[in-house]
Amino acid sequence: MNPKVEKLKINYKTMEEFKKFKEYGAQELSMLEDLQANMIEDDSHSPFYGIYFGDKLVARMSLYRKDSLFDQYFDPPQDYLEIWKLEVLPGYQNNNYGKKLINYAKNYNMPIKTNPRMNSRKFFEKMGFEPVKYEVERDLGENPLVWYPFGVSEQKH
Amino acid sequence: MNPKVEKLKINYKTMEEFKKFKEYGAQELSMLEDLQANMIEDDSHSPFYGIYFGDKLVARMSLYRKDSLFDQYFDPPQDYLEIWKLEVLPGYQNNNYGKKLINYAKNYNMPIKTNPRMNSRKFFEKMGFEPVKYEVERDLGENPLVWYPFGVSEQKH
Repeated sequence: MNPKVEKLKINYKTMEEFKKFKEYGAQELSMLEDLQANMIEDDSHSPFYGIYFGDKLVARMSLYRKDSLFDQYFDPPQDYLEIWKLEVLPGYQNNNYGKKLINYAKNYNMPIKTNPRMNSRKFFEKMGFEPVKYEVERDLGENPLVWYPFGVSEQKH
Repeated sequence: MNPKVEKLKINYKTMEEFKKFKEYGAQELSMLEDLQANMIEDDSHSPFYGIYFGDKLVARMSLYRKDSLFDQYFDPPQDYLEIWKLEVLPGYQNNNYGKKLINYAKNYNMPIKTNPRMNSRKFFEKMGFEPVKYEVERDLGENPLVWYPFGVSEQKH
């Protein structure tokens, strides 16, 4: 078995799977409400990508495309990806699932930004992510790491 | 002694005091670099506000004014304040220092947004902060709480 990264569909089954992840929160509750209120179709696409081991969702991340209008990080300014909620369930760690998720994102060949939890900074750094110079107006309480595809560099302010 | 909230000045003494706080990070390192490179004057104002107990800085928060152009939270759209790094040193907690910092911010009578750590959500809620409806494009990995002054409400999208 060679588990692959899949784009997750929002439905009750997925919402149940999400409850096993530590970073279950406002985002998931909002999706659940939208499902219950029929504001979204069952099987709508989400910004979540995940890895199934058999029938079980064992790793996930949220991946969202930000418009170049909002790009304050990259030179030249361009559309970029933002990653959050990257998480592998206990018992399934050390199987390169986190790495597979990151590589999936890198395959878009777009710059990536993330504001990782303290305990996942090292992992992102190992995957080639770098800190940016802190700027209060842009970063406020964040301490972001970014990944540059070839030909892209840090935006100077 | 009745400790008061003060706007902190960026100098080597303040930077030393900051090292005692758990959320010491990129923001403080950047200020320290700017001091060392003479890019800012000793005694420049910072976005930090704090409370001294005698000579010792025992509580602090970062408070920054965001321009109405960036307001996606409040109706009518307007300048608002963002709080982060609100923290009271161990041994000085339960003295209402956190409450004093929040009340200082509320005195501006502007809406306030914060994206608190899990362990401080309850405190902010006790201080009248409320969750907003999660919106992926705006909130991404955040789970913000906001405070509305009289006459201000949640922005509908």
